Amino acid sequence: MSTTSEELAQARQRISAAYDPQLFNQSAHRLADLLALNLDRAQRSEGPVLPWMDPPDAITEARASLHRAETSPDDSSGTDCPERFAHLVTTMLERGLNLQDPRYIGHQVPAPVPLAGLFDAVGSATNQCMAIYEMGPWATAVEQAMVRELGEAIGWAPDSFAGSATHGGSLANLTGLLTARNVALGEAWEQGLADSAARPVLLVHADAHYSVARAAGILGLGSRNTVRVGLDRQGRMDPRRLDEALTRAHSLNQPVVAVVACACATPTGAFDPLEEIAEACRRHGVWLHVDAAHGGAALLSGRHRHLLAGLEQADSVVWDAHKMLFVPALCTFILYREKSHSFDAFRQDAPYLFDPAAPGMAEYDSGVRTVECTKRATVFGLWGVWSLFGRQLFADMVDVTFALGRTFYEKLSEAEDFLPLHVPQCNIVVFRHIPATLRAAPAERIGAFQLELRRRLIESGEFYIVPSTVDGIGALRTTIINPLTTPAHLEQLLDALRRQGQELLRG
Amino acid sequence: MSTTSEELAQARQRISAAYDPQLFNQSAHRLADLLALNLDRAQRSEGPVLPWMDPPDAITEARASLHRAETSPDDSSGTDCPERFAHLVTTMLERGLNLQDPRYIGHQVPAPVPLAGLFDAVGSATNQCMAIYEMGPWATAVEQAMVRELGEAIGWAPDSFAGSATHGGSLANLTGLLTARNVALGEAWEQGLADSAARPVLLVHADAHYSVARAAGILGLGSRNTVRVGLDRQGRMDPRRLDEALTRAHSLNQPVVAVVACACATPTGAFDPLEEIAEACRRHGVWLHVDAAHGGAALLSGRHRHLLAGLEQADSVVWDAHKMLFVPALCTFILYREKSHSFDAFRQDAPYLFDPAAPGMAEYDSGVRTVECTKRATVFGLWGVWSLFGRQLFADMVDVTFALGRTFYEKLSEAEDFLPLHVPQCNIVVFRHIPATLRAAPAERIGAFQLELRRRLIESGEFYIVPSTVDGIGALRTTIINPLTTPAHLEQLLDALRRQGQELLRG
Repeated sequence: MSTTSEELAQARQRISAAYDPQLFNQSAHRLADLLALNLDRAQRSEGPVLPWMDPPDAITEARASLHRAETSPDDSSGTDCPERFAHLVTTMLERGLNLQDPRYIGHQVPAPVPLAGLFDAVGSATNQCMAIYEMGPWATAVEQAMVRELGEAIGWAPDSFAGSATHGGSLANLTGLLTARNVALGEAWEQGLADSAARPVLLVHADAHYSVARAAGILGLGSRNTVRVGLDRQGRMDPRRLDEALTRAHSLNQPVVAVVACACATPTGAFDPLEEIAEACRRHGVWLHVDAAHGGAALLSGRHRHLLAGLEQADSVVWDAHKMLFVPALCTFILYREKSHSFDAFRQDAPYLFDPAAPGMAEYDSGVRTVECTKRATVFGLWGVWSLFGRQLFADMVDVTFALGRTFYEKLSEAEDFLPLHVPQCNIVVFRHIPATLRAAPAERIGAFQLELRRRLIESGEFYIVPSTVDGIGALRTTIINPLTTPAHLEQLLDALRRQGQELLRG
Repeated sequence: MSTTSEELAQARQRISAAYDPQLFNQSAHRLADLLALNLDRAQRSEGPVLPWMDPPDAITEARASLHRAETSPDDSSGTDCPERFAHLVTTMLERGLNLQDPRYIGHQVPAPVPLAGLFDAVGSATNQCMAIYEMGPWATAVEQAMVRELGEAIGWAPDSFAGSATHGGSLANLTGLLTARNVALGEAWEQGLADSAARPVLLVHADAHYSVARAAGILGLGSRNTVRVGLDRQGRMDPRRLDEALTRAHSLNQPVVAVVACACATPTGAFDPLEEIAEACRRHGVWLHVDAAHGGAALLSGRHRHLLAGLEQADSVVWDAHKMLFVPALCTFILYREKSHSFDAFRQDAPYLFDPAAPGMAEYDSGVRTVECTKRATVFGLWGVWSLFGRQLFADMVDVTFALGRTFYEKLSEAEDFLPLHVPQCNIVVFRHIPATLRAAPAERIGAFQLELRRRLIESGEFYIVPSTVDGIGALRTTIINPLTTPAHLEQLLDALRRQGQELLRG
């Protein structure tokens, strides 16, 4: 059944209307106003941090919108289109979590530098993306420029290392551990693991991010074959216990794919002693992978750089720019100390991608080094902000938010009805609210109270913080990752928790 | 070493300047003008399609930009900031591939509907992202609304299926095949594959995308344990040979993780006979995974929907919106016919993510179903464009570009010096240019000529097409994926190839 030329002409007309630069221009200016207004309001805490809505209701509303154009087809182009565009954008802004509100003190996902979103939008609007160099020449150049900057910040010599950007820390951990597996197990890529004589293991920080055990599940190693190395009292991997675990694996004839250390670990933000860990890995000849998704940024701060001493000895490093480099998600770097390792993750070619007429280009083709084939230009936001404001801004944001972590800890320590659960090493602070009436309650009751209290708090829209558990008991967790949050906001958070806590106990 | 309060105050001042809503507002309006101008120029083919630049030069320039703010720190805030922002954006626009130029006839990456980029920018600017529902309530709602729409387009009954969005077709293929592996091999997730009695295999379309064999490498199955099932003369998987391969695997006691079919296959866009393939899979009790990254969109066209008959019988389906649904990369759906399968890819929890105080939410937490933990709101562009223009626009774009594929094939067939290498089933057309002087040349010479000719053409900036090989011999490959490309542009492409070919032969 072929399409008649008249039908095609009509289709072309509708397409031209949708692709019209004039419509785009009008809509883009509407968007600029709406986003700026939204930013201003969020910064001044007008409106809720989280506009709570039950998931089924939200999905129903989102779906109804898809069918509206069909019921009123005459509206689908023409003068009211920018108006309808603005209406949809307003809906999107009203229904989302407001990370730019300084009362957002939640996940390790930042209130990004606002201009980062605009630089990022250049990539979206023009669909500059990557896989091979010629597809995204500038996206590739920007990514590689940034890789070089970050690798040198780690302390690696220029041109000795390599890396690329990928979609998130979980994917980067997977990629780094895949590389380690291929290096450690020889023919695993081609032959698979079904013939392995022994069960290979991963030795990991006991509180490593779930994506690490998940990587073991994905890579065919088995999630249970991750050996959790014990921690010291500050939540850091204990190098002595690591050494014992490495010795034990050797005596059991278990190949060790990698040691996974954290800088810092997710639960309370503890930084592992990387120098001693690297020393143990070197002694045992084992790959060291460091998940520095959150903490890598401390390298840019003269005051906090010491937390990462030894990182330069890691074989692979994961660093999320969409955490403490304050750009929108997702923008993660997977970096290899030895340049050649960046080609060990995958071992293939694709004739419709890689061009024998220009073999020198393969070095610049991102597709040979990341899980992604077509890859979004993820680095534009970081590159743009860095170009505009310089490295100092990133040091500032680390210093300010880390200092706030300490300030919050002090406030919690001073209050009789709050209990900080650790001395913060960065901007992650975990604690419990224990009103006088609960002081003698069983631990489980106190833990359940934290989680109920948090849910009540976030659904009220007053603040946004996250839940956690410490030693199996519920707790409250904050990451101060909006650099406009102030000590006054932290005071208000304690007051809000007290008030909501009282209401909860009365209810 | 703690930061002094004066240093912190200065840092806060610099941060406030960078987060200033006024600066954002001015910059966003500059961006709107620059993007609209760029779109208009690209559509009118002003300037090169690809502004060729050698990678090292581009990287050097991108890196120099990072250091400019440091050498002139006084510029880093204040009134000239929007000006410097505009300058950086201009650089980004001038250095990128212009997909909106109708002479871009290249990869399976579209000239997106321009407003899709603006909807997408809402997510970037506000950093609305996902992992758990409360983090991105509207992003989750939009994603699930779109999953329901697409699943019903496949022909699945409402509420019987499930799915989610992920960052690209390669990651989606990996996720779908991970699910298949976990279902087929029982304890593989927890125990790993080292104890497998037999070597499991994947049976795949002989021309499946490289990400499929790559998935076998990643998942510990071994890239060599992908059995390539032979094709018919139109490049489609031969169901008879599939049946033989399934029988053989059974007799060799090899567990079959999945059969991977294509709709359509990358090289020439061939659509597999899914009904017969599904029938064979059902008979042998094997998981059917269909890579419909490119062709899924044909479901929305009354004229081309028949190409996907049988897709509703697949266990898992991959569908890239950033291909034939004309939104910016990356936006891919992994869809499961049986709802429960969407939880079989990963089997974990993370106490700091999933909230026992609201257990019903887990169903809406994206992090339990995708490799990504924090995930960008990838579906805003698609949802926005669909809401604004309705489903018809997508049908139009499929119809127009598929028809152009046929038109181009006819032009190639009519020309004495061009040879189409297949009858196109969609908008992918592979061919060779064979000037009279080369007609008697050896195949290798003709193949090398195609690749040299293409490189010359794209570096000239006149057109953008891609290389391929057919039967080991170089060829030219086009995907008509800018819906503003017209038959006249295709004529011009042939003329440009003739002219550049003559110059190449003379040189």
